[in-house]
Amino acid sequence: MQIYNTQIDKIIELALEEDIGSGDITTLSTIPENTTAHGRFIAKQDTVICGIDVAEKVFHKIDETVCFKAYFSDGDLVKTGDVIAEVDGNARSMLTAERCALNIMQRLSGVAQRTAECVEMVKGTKAKIADTRKTTPGMRALEKYAVRIGGGTNHRYNLADGVLIKDNHIAAAGSITAAVTNARRFIPHTLKIEVEVETVDQLNEALEAGADIIMLDNMSNEQMAECVKIVSGRALLEASGNMDRRNLYEVAKTGVDIISIGALTHTIKAADISLKFKLNQ
Amino acid sequence: MQIYNTQIDKIIELALEEDIGSGDITTLSTIPENTTAHGRFIAKQDTVICGIDVAEKVFHKIDETVCFKAYFSDGDLVKTGDVIAEVDGNARSMLTAERCALNIMQRLSGVAQRTAECVEMVKGTKAKIADTRKTTPGMRALEKYAVRIGGGTNHRYNLADGVLIKDNHIAAAGSITAAVTNARRFIPHTLKIEVEVETVDQLNEALEAGADIIMLDNMSNEQMAECVKIVSGRALLEASGNMDRRNLYEVAKTGVDIISIGALTHTIKAADISLKFKLNQ
Amino acid sequence: MQIYNTQIDKIIELALEEDIGSGDITTLSTIPENTTAHGRFIAKQDTVICGIDVAEKVFHKIDETVCFKAYFSDGDLVKTGDVIAEVDGNARSMLTAERCALNIMQRLSGVAQRTAECVEMVKGTKAKIADTRKTTPGMRALEKYAVRIGGGTNHRYNLADGVLIKDNHIAAAGSITAAVTNARRFIPHTLKIEVEVETVDQLNEALEAGADIIMLDNMSNEQMAECVKIVSGRALLEASGNMDRRNLYEVAKTGVDIISIGALTHTIKAADISLKFKLNQ
Amino acid sequence: MQIYNTQIDKIIELALEEDIGSGDITTLSTIPENTTAHGRFIAKQDTVICGIDVAEKVFHKIDETVCFKAYFSDGDLVKTGDVIAEVDGNARSMLTAERCALNIMQRLSGVAQRTAECVEMVKGTKAKIADTRKTTPGMRALEKYAVRIGGGTNHRYNLADGVLIKDNHIAAAGSITAAVTNARRFIPHTLKIEVEVETVDQLNEALEAGADIIMLDNMSNEQMAECVKIVSGRALLEASGNMDRRNLYEVAKTGVDIISIGALTHTIKAADISLKFKLNQ
Amino acid sequence: MQIYNTQIDKIIELALEEDIGSGDITTLSTIPENTTAHGRFIAKQDTVICGIDVAEKVFHKIDETVCFKAYFSDGDLVKTGDVIAEVDGNARSMLTAERCALNIMQRLSGVAQRTAECVEMVKGTKAKIADTRKTTPGMRALEKYAVRIGGGTNHRYNLADGVLIKDNHIAAAGSITAAVTNARRFIPHTLKIEVEVETVDQLNEALEAGADIIMLDNMSNEQMAECVKIVSGRALLEASGNMDRRNLYEVAKTGVDIISIGALTHTIKAADISLKFKLNQ
Amino acid sequence: MQIYNTQIDKIIELALEEDIGSGDITTLSTIPENTTAHGRFIAKQDTVICGIDVAEKVFHKIDETVCFKAYFSDGDLVKTGDVIAEVDGNARSMLTAERCALNIMQRLSGVAQRTAECVEMVKGTKAKIADTRKTTPGMRALEKYAVRIGGGTNHRYNLADGVLIKDNHIAAAGSITAAVTNARRFIPHTLKIEVEVETVDQLNEALEAGADIIMLDNMSNEQMAECVKIVSGRALLEASGNMDRRNLYEVAKTGVDIISIGALTHTIKAADISLKFKLNQ
Repeated sequence: MQIYNTQIDKIIELALEEDIGSGDITTLSTIPENTTAHGRFIAKQDTVICGIDVAEKVFHKIDETVCFKAYFSDGDLVKTGDVIAEVDGNARSMLTAERCALNIMQRLSGVAQRTAECVEMVKGTKAKIADTRKTTPGMRALEKYAVRIGGGTNHRYNLADGVLIKDNHIAAAGSITAAVTNARRFIPHTLKIEVEVETVDQLNEALEAGADIIMLDNMSNEQMAECVKIVSGRALLEASGNMDRRNLYEVAKTGVDIISIGALTHTIKAADISLKFKLNQ
Repeated sequence: MQIYNTQIDKIIELALEEDIGSGDITTLSTIPENTTAHGRFIAKQDTVICGIDVAEKVFHKIDETVCFKAYFSDGDLVKTGDVIAEVDGNARSMLTAERCALNIMQRLSGVAQRTAECVEMVKGTKAKIADTRKTTPGMRALEKYAVRIGGGTNHRYNLADGVLIKDNHIAAAGSITAAVTNARRFIPHTLKIEVEVETVDQLNEALEAGADIIMLDNMSNEQMAECVKIVSGRALLEASGNMDRRNLYEVAKTGVDIISIGALTHTIKAADISLKFKLNQ
Repeated sequence: MQIYNTQIDKIIELALEEDIGSGDITTLSTIPENTTAHGRFIAKQDTVICGIDVAEKVFHKIDETVCFKAYFSDGDLVKTGDVIAEVDGNARSMLTAERCALNIMQRLSGVAQRTAECVEMVKGTKAKIADTRKTTPGMRALEKYAVRIGGGTNHRYNLADGVLIKDNHIAAAGSITAAVTNARRFIPHTLKIEVEVETVDQLNEALEAGADIIMLDNMSNEQMAECVKIVSGRALLEASGNMDRRNLYEVAKTGVDIISIGALTHTIKAADISLKFKLNQ
Repeated sequence: MQIYNTQIDKIIELALEEDIGSGDITTLSTIPENTTAHGRFIAKQDTVICGIDVAEKVFHKIDETVCFKAYFSDGDLVKTGDVIAEVDGNARSMLTAERCALNIMQRLSGVAQRTAECVEMVKGTKAKIADTRKTTPGMRALEKYAVRIGGGTNHRYNLADGVLIKDNHIAAAGSITAAVTNARRFIPHTLKIEVEVETVDQLNEALEAGADIIMLDNMSNEQMAECVKIVSGRALLEASGNMDRRNLYEVAKTGVDIISIGALTHTIKAADISLKFKLNQ
Repeated sequence: MQIYNTQIDKIIELALEEDIGSGDITTLSTIPENTTAHGRFIAKQDTVICGIDVAEKVFHKIDETVCFKAYFSDGDLVKTGDVIAEVDGNARSMLTAERCALNIMQRLSGVAQRTAECVEMVKGTKAKIADTRKTTPGMRALEKYAVRIGGGTNHRYNLADGVLIKDNHIAAAGSITAAVTNARRFIPHTLKIEVEVETVDQLNEALEAGADIIMLDNMSNEQMAECVKIVSGRALLEASGNMDRRNLYEVAKTGVDIISIGALTHTIKAADISLKFKLNQ
Repeated sequence: MQIYNTQIDKIIELALEEDIGSGDITTLSTIPENTTAHGRFIAKQDTVICGIDVAEKVFHKIDETVCFKAYFSDGDLVKTGDVIAEVDGNARSMLTAERCALNIMQRLSGVAQRTAECVEMVKGTKAKIADTRKTTPGMRALEKYAVRIGGGTNHRYNLADGVLIKDNHIAAAGSITAAVTNARRFIPHTLKIEVEVETVDQLNEALEAGADIIMLDNMSNEQMAECVKIVSGRALLEASGNMDRRNLYEVAKTGVDIISIGALTHTIKAADISLKFKLNQ
């Protein structure tokens, strides 16, 4: 969070622009210009918390003089009733920023919490829980951050920084071997190559072709266990395909390295966090 | 959708930028430049469909020559297995656009479907189902559109085009009466004034002050029914506060005019829609 | 002004970009880098002043270290010779910012002054003076602000936050009744519906249809007085159509609620305000 | 107009964004999607017309399929009642674009007409009528274009493409001579140097220093005539300072080369042009 | 090039904006609006050609009706005198676009040619020639493309899609082992980890830690040959450090996999390509 | 540098965006959040230094708290080993900013140094060394600044702020005389007119037509000397055409006023400057 990220800046600005429009007319007309207030972010459920720094950023985009004090850090577990953070400053500024800050923190905490639950399910195995590119438009940087905060790991960020060879790529190239070879010649040497397979034959061809990662698509646990045996450490194995509907512990026990779950980000359940203000008078 | 909307253009561009980065290297390295393909959007669940026009826009941002043919319109109910739309054109362009188009269509359909379910629940009453400002950052224009497509109605778009006087505004102004008066003087005469109340006393003061809409915050059905009787058509009444956890039909039977539900957009469940390509060879 | 408004930021940035280009070469070549100066904004005519905060913003976009001290607030009446504000700081920065700050302050003061004159004309009546969408491209947020500062009230900000049903909408919908009904179903419940009418028959139909506001287009004062009698408080009445050429007091005496005047912003007369610098040596 | 100009694109986009917001809800709710219409731009006063191409651009930003047919070109004199242009196409698109197109065309025609009147006043003399940097924020490219269309000539576009040495520059540099010398060393050799003077002594120093253009600030006609005699063609002479309040013919007769008039653009009187639509049914 | 790339669009737009400003006044004043012309891009030196598609894009940004016909493709070797491409269309549009199109094509061809020369030098070895992040600000996407066109391969695109652990990272983490372990835990599993080493001890530690790529910084050929022997295929080896001053064939013969050369893009020699127009009259 | 320049801001932002992407994952994973460091910019060759202020700007875009201390100013000659500047602050911020700051400073210093060498070659003559529009896309403002810092002078910044009549303009206008006349009528009176000529006849016609500057295109020194004699001070003379391959002193001795050299910016040789960090522990 502490590092320059124009993608996060852009989505915050877009969110503020769409929410504030030409101005918060309720606040402008009812609250005197110099009124100050005190606000508290309070957890209304137990959850891994995420988005505290972003919320601070939102307030400071509106008004740099708002004082934001956090009592937890991203990744901490907060309990119902905990005061997550406090804000003090101009009442108009804070009421205008409120919804946007909450919208972001609630969603990111929801993603982090869901991720943490999945990570918990595979505890004791070597499997990592990973996200996918099924993120909310505009929110990728933030949602991938929330997955990390929840204890998960990120899959490729976008189409430019990872190779994932699927059926159509294989068909166009002629074979898995040809596809891997073509990709290897084209891509930066800093990137691994992943191939999606549906059968053991494809798995073997991918291995031969030098794939670094093999995605096992919609396989049964038995099939995956067999693949793990065949590969025997020569490549990373990633379990994929509606994993949110599976028993993750059973999947993990097959010995796969990564379980990637689209639902971490394609289905979002906002965490229940409130922000209550009290005017200073 | 057919109308100029820079907010929708911005979120699509942001989504493409974050997903494509400097280029889809898997596709560029494995699929020859002039390969063409045929793709089909297929419903994997029954759902109100939403986002067809936006998906078309996504494809055309990438490549204007892609041919997009829809078999349904936004708002139609599609059944599992239905072909929603077909795309034909350059394979590279379409594979690059795929994820972004799906991400949007799945989310919007999820919102429309959820809304339609709520609308169905209050069938036979006069109550309308409305959204809130608890939308996904950057997605407001699209999510509010999906709510309408699902049969719902929109609450104010942003802080500039609606007045909602809450506890802090009342406290700062001194009273409900003062807050309403101040707002009336300040805002365009084309806007109504809404006041959030928690008690019958507040309701009466808001009515006296000339509020056009009164939000009943977290009231029991009995309380709401009483408010309906008191108001007797002199203002619109809006039921609000964790409505997703309530029996909507019982709420609607109290006679309120609007039931606003944050969960329509703060909790998103992507509809299951797939896009399958076949290369032309 | 104190609140986040990206539209105002955008027009200021556009103004600076178009005025400064790749740099103020006269200043860069003749004024040593560390020269400081003192400047005074002086009224050269009596006028309601508007744009002081924006002018400060302009200076601070160029150079955050410029010290800006205002002696009046937006909305105050300044007299010829009054010192409105003083600026102190780097001479290069201030000379570069000068024209842009003045261009904005002079125009906004012109709008505020013109509005104030109209408001004065209807003093003693209940009529409010309102603006229209006939604002200068890019300047809407600022010009609507200036109208408020001058004592006027704003009509809808844009096409999304107000409904104004005119002849073509009526023709397409089939009737005033149909148009109002269709709009009511579509729009947020927080917005009123306005219908433009030219005859008493239309007025009656609009009233029946439940219009909240009725625009009387180009009617004589006699006609408007009759409309006021008919409506008798059941809707707001807005007088419209070349109102700048009418005797506003006579119009107001008919009992209409709002008089909307395109000329407040489609015809701009910059107020005469100067900014004189003296270098510190 | 036919040439790439990002500044014009930016102000059009800003104007559409601020006017349309999230969508034209009146039109969307009352006019069926496929309704078409025919519209006519009609002159309601005699005026030099300007902005026809820009208006076309506005319509095409909203909807590329709108057919725009012009009967006049920018710079033509139109008479009351003349049909300036016709538009045919989707009714929703055109109603949404209407106000923005008109706002621009009315303002530009106003500037062109005012300029043409000034040009007419100095007919028979060699003096040219020039604009200044006192343009509307964001509208510089368009307003300077309108001045040319009205028969005027442009002063420098911005601070980077012209040198105008004023009192503070002279004070900082130490003398007119030093200021001119410093500027000459710094600026591209493709630019002339202009010096503002108030006395004959200053005029002589500027001439000696090699100024290419000398601005005579707020001088009487007698003083200017004397300056013309002294300079005798060795530099261009520009009359400046509230020229809109002077008898331009008398000023021109002094023999000055340019008369620059801030009021051409700091005071804008929108020309009366209407756009009337008829739906096709 | 055929694929959506917002980074390329942005730099083209920036280039046109800075070169055209408010309009090409020479062309606008001397060339009638409807004049057409024919232009030819001609090679004035033998070179690998690169940037043809981008040049076409530049012309089409200015004017979509310009007809652009290429006789070579990016990557072809053109000889002095070859006609690379022809353009036909509006003379104003093409003269305005000329310099920007040439500036890009000349630079990209220079980069491609330089790369091709380096690739030629290591012919017969297994070494690949790679670029670095020492690219021209704003031009990364284009320059990395030119390197590929010249037969080279790309190193990581940016700081987000590759890991390169250098001295400071090692110092902060405590050891190479700790740094590699920390990175592995944090980064997407799709990325390799590269470690920069200066000694054989560091090399051994990096290998042990599981580095996928090891950068040999400023080593002599002898040292590098020894490293190749030690590593024996367990990791990729990259030679780095002022490689443009070295005999690349000798470096390649040490058996390293990649030679990365900052000078491919930090030192740019524009290829000599001209564009000559003839007006149609 | 000290003055508002949106073009410089844009290219810096583009450079950071393309270099950092979604975050510096090596640094984020290996360097603890609160680690601080000390860095030194060191000259590895003798060079005119340029870009110190810009480098500071780059660091401050990433992190405003970084302390940047310069020991030289742009335009100073630094010797191998000199410490140009020091930075202190958060290690993550500075490592993330490093490459972008260096890329800019190295290139600008390269341009300034090359310019200074050319200026040195014509020492003792009156000729000035000027740049052209053959600058790197996106870098014009910075490269033209570097030319000035190197002792050179700028030609026109873009197509809008200078007139350069070439063969096609002459052909379209009918003659040099017509072209100059048309331009004079169209352009601001603050701009000079330059005509490119290839023969003495053209020179004479340009002089008669009132050209302010005459570009001698690809002439021999003898021809240029003759032109100087003919013109005898009535216009500025600019030598142009592959001047980097000529003996500049001989060219200058012909008496031309300006020698413009595309190679100053179309061929860039980055100066060798390093930035070394040491972590504080």
